[in-house]
Amino acid sequence: MGPVTENFASKTPSRAQQVRSFLRQNHLLAWIAWRPDELLMLCGYFPFWGASLSIYFADAEPLLFLPQIEPRDHIPTGVRVQEYPWGDLKCPDPYSALVSAIGGELLQAKIKPEHVGMNRSAARSSLPIQAAEQIPMPEAFAQKLSALAAPGKQCQNSFADLYLRKTAEEIAAIRLANQVANIGLQAFFANLQPGISEAEVAAAVESAIYRELGRNGIFHSRGWAMVQSGPNSAAAGRFNRSAGRRLQNGDLVVIELATCVNGYWSDLTRTAAVGTPNPAVEPILALATEAQQAAVEAIAPGVSAGHIDALARDKISAQGFASYFPHHTGHHVGFRYHDPGFLIFPGETALLEAGMIVTIEPGVYVPERGGGARIEDNVLVTESGHEVLSNIDGNEAGSMDQASRKS
Amino acid sequence: MGPVTENFASKTPSRAQQVRSFLRQNHLLAWIAWRPDELLMLCGYFPFWGASLSIYFADAEPLLFLPQIEPRDHIPTGVRVQEYPWGDLKCPDPYSALVSAIGGELLQAKIKPEHVGMNRSAARSSLPIQAAEQIPMPEAFAQKLSALAAPGKQCQNSFADLYLRKTAEEIAAIRLANQVANIGLQAFFANLQPGISEAEVAAAVESAIYRELGRNGIFHSRGWAMVQSGPNSAAAGRFNRSAGRRLQNGDLVVIELATCVNGYWSDLTRTAAVGTPNPAVEPILALATEAQQAAVEAIAPGVSAGHIDALARDKISAQGFASYFPHHTGHHVGFRYHDPGFLIFPGETALLEAGMIVTIEPGVYVPERGGGARIEDNVLVTESGHEVLSNIDGNEAGSMDQASRKS
Repeated sequence: MGPVTENFASKTPSRAQQVRSFLRQNHLLAWIAWRPDELLMLCGYFPFWGASLSIYFADAEPLLFLPQIEPRDHIPTGVRVQEYPWGDLKCPDPYSALVSAIGGELLQAKIKPEHVGMNRSAARSSLPIQAAEQIPMPEAFAQKLSALAAPGKQCQNSFADLYLRKTAEEIAAIRLANQVANIGLQAFFANLQPGISEAEVAAAVESAIYRELGRNGIFHSRGWAMVQSGPNSAAAGRFNRSAGRRLQNGDLVVIELATCVNGYWSDLTRTAAVGTPNPAVEPILALATEAQQAAVEAIAPGVSAGHIDALARDKISAQGFASYFPHHTGHHVGFRYHDPGFLIFPGETALLEAGMIVTIEPGVYVPERGGGARIEDNVLVTESGHEVLSNIDGNEAGSMDQASRKS
Repeated sequence: MGPVTENFASKTPSRAQQVRSFLRQNHLLAWIAWRPDELLMLCGYFPFWGASLSIYFADAEPLLFLPQIEPRDHIPTGVRVQEYPWGDLKCPDPYSALVSAIGGELLQAKIKPEHVGMNRSAARSSLPIQAAEQIPMPEAFAQKLSALAAPGKQCQNSFADLYLRKTAEEIAAIRLANQVANIGLQAFFANLQPGISEAEVAAAVESAIYRELGRNGIFHSRGWAMVQSGPNSAAAGRFNRSAGRRLQNGDLVVIELATCVNGYWSDLTRTAAVGTPNPAVEPILALATEAQQAAVEAIAPGVSAGHIDALARDKISAQGFASYFPHHTGHHVGFRYHDPGFLIFPGETALLEAGMIVTIEPGVYVPERGGGARIEDNVLVTESGHEVLSNIDGNEAGSMDQASRKS
């Protein structure tokens, strides 16, 4: 993998400091974490199988409840582990055992429900490692668990703020996810040939990402590549997916790529042409690239999200394509493919701060011209400005030349 | 893809008949479906993006609510479609619009909450097509939605029974998923060479599956391959995953493979040796294979799940390996990687019926010998016995010879 251009030392408070401050401000003594992204953020632990839970105490080490079938070889230090009998043939109701154990720990610590917080929403956001399906949480268990945590929903909103400021260790992990994603993007550029199907290009990208597992301390590496070519690329502003269409000379090809490495996420988009772009779509790619660069270059602490959005949107509007850019310019990223938090969005007054990582992803999609383009990078706000965690070099070219420059 | 060995004409009532019967028995006039597997089963529709909902009426065509960003090219006939503004820059609260629309439809149909059913559990089971992350359902929306559906939880249990008996069309779709999975398995056998990593083998399998998209009416094709080799294979009874370990001559290699094609699932496992299996592990593979065949051969309508389990388990116990087979022998499959319903499990008295599709997957995992083995097929119960939807030929060999025979 390529050299890291800048090793930004985040001045963000440590994760433990941030979480304890959140608990204090919300009059909480404990937080029950059950989503993979919560476990990752609070404990540095990404569940393999998906039925792990943690109690994060204000005044003690976190306690992690693992199903007995969970592997134990990437549990962080400083976390106590307690097993529960998920996967035991002789235990038909592991959730009752789990909820009893959680209740017992809270009782022993003399913590009442009104001082325990928990996310309640009806779906997970970030997938566990084995993500062929979600582990359904039985309703009876969800109810019993809820009874252990009783504060208002204000603290849930406030919990979401914890995703915003990444620590130095988290930035390093998200940088690694972007480096792996770039290996996937190399496969994208290398496969842009007439006759190959969108799905075949996407398969090559995902394969390149999965193959990184086992290198550089990577125990989990997975990509979701969505490739849209020619007229299909004009729909990339509404949805992303791969179809069976075969690439043709002159096509614009958009790849939307989600990459998860050890639980941390990258969210990138590239657009390139097969051979020389058709004259009708060439300006679209140039415009998306120009808008993206304008937004990226302005990223710095104290700049408002709305201002960044406007820089990209104004470029596109100035060429008469305002209605062909129907989505936000960006969002926070790292613990999830889409972290919670303010969007880079028209009129958004929230200010960027050092330690935040956002996507910048304006796009222009013009069905009448048979093509669309989006360029998306993950950008760290630094003390002095910004660092593009995903390699931005060469995106301007929008052609296969990139493949050779990148490899 | 290979020829289909038997075209079993399911006598299972049509899906609409089954669902209406369920509604009638539970005194329901409508069901609100929001999980991908529910939408697939009730409407034949697999959501691409993940925020689709449906009202299934006892006395009218289903009504499908789609976010405006959802593609429209694989919506089944006989389903009414209503768009809601998810993805509209100008609508910050699409869920309110959605819940109003749902409430309005129920009001217009004069259906009260006590006659509306819904699954409430706190996680989805089956993933939408773009499964890099789950779409979190905001808590406020989940609460408002719940207020529209008020019956007891009995009807949720009874709803789970709808997964058990597959119609002819569903069987064909699950057969196709198994055919695609077998293409992935061919890549598995073809890649079993010393020096390749588990992750690299898995990547090749997933890639082969993704590449099928666009052929034979396939608009979605995705595999999750988990490869464990040598000593790692001995853990395959507790968990499945790929690591960076490189294959060695004589290793047993287990692949657990989830495959989703157009929303329908296959769940297969193969075990094979790299070259000639080490003498210590060769009997393990032979025993798992023998146990699996004994169970598969007995599958027929009217046979109890417990009896099928015993046939496999007794073979393994007779060789002194009872404690090395720590999991169930099988489960229902098709709408999910793991459908709800009774397990093929010790003492289970439920009877197999024509139209059911179950996995048969005994395994033997012996850390002391440095290896484990499991063979898993998806088996349709037919009027006269069974049909193995996944190609079982050649599993006995447990060697790379299979690859050539299968291709």
